[in-house]
Amino acid sequence: MNITLKPIGFIHTQATHVPRHWSVSELEGDLVIDPQYQEGLRDIKVGEHIIVIFHFHQARPFMDRHLVQKPPHSEEMRGVFSTCSPLRPNPIGLSIFKVLGLHDNIIHVKGLDTFDGTPILDLKPYVEVKQDLSP
Amino acid sequence: MNITLKPIGFIHTQATHVPRHWSVSELEGDLVIDPQYQEGLRDIKVGEHIIVIFHFHQARPFMDRHLVQKPPHSEEMRGVFSTCSPLRPNPIGLSIFKVLGLHDNIIHVKGLDTFDGTPILDLKPYVEVKQDLSP
Repeated sequence: MNITLKPIGFIHTQATHVPRHWSVSELEGDLVIDPQYQEGLRDIKVGEHIIVIFHFHQARPFMDRHLVQKPPHSEEMRGVFSTCSPLRPNPIGLSIFKVLGLHDNIIHVKGLDTFDGTPILDLKPYVEVKQDLSP
Repeated sequence: MNITLKPIGFIHTQATHVPRHWSVSELEGDLVIDPQYQEGLRDIKVGEHIIVIFHFHQARPFMDRHLVQKPPHSEEMRGVFSTCSPLRPNPIGLSIFKVLGLHDNIIHVKGLDTFDGTPILDLKPYVEVKQDLSP
């Protein structure tokens, strides 16, 4: 059972080095969306955060030994599903960027942690978890 | 340029009706992960939230007229990338569930908003946006 996806656009940045995670990144760049989807961007607002789902297009193939990995910023091994590593069974990434501008089919964002040329698969509104005290 | 993914597991629930969004759901169910990936689950902890990326396997094909849609809970039309609709260019869904239990390859969660049998593509740690006051 295979699921086939196509990029809706690409991430562009001038940076040759990108921070390890969007939560610690101030890097700016552009999400260039295929013009055929431009109308779908119309309610994205400057100042809000958006979720970007993308393809880890430079990731090596996943192997069993990647099920537990040592993240670069950690001393301890972690199960892959508790990391943001590009080495995962399906090479899908997720970042949350702040929208700084929207012009036609291009979204200017802050918080980049992805390489130039990264294929974008989807954009979604960011909805925060309401923390509760229930067990 | 196609990207091909395979399910890492499936969502199971007894419910025949599911709430419209995880943020308003108290529904419980199980994420049954393929045993070959079980070791990658080892650092998922009871009480935390996890991001689940899944395939909208029952979604109809996306068409241009879906670029702007009226969400079921809204009176207004919205651009597809500001909605959680299954009718989107790539039929990928994202939900955030609370972990209630983890036994072998099965994660018991609360917050389900997906149909029984939904294919899971990835699990990721939930990281909150730190809101700032900068422009």
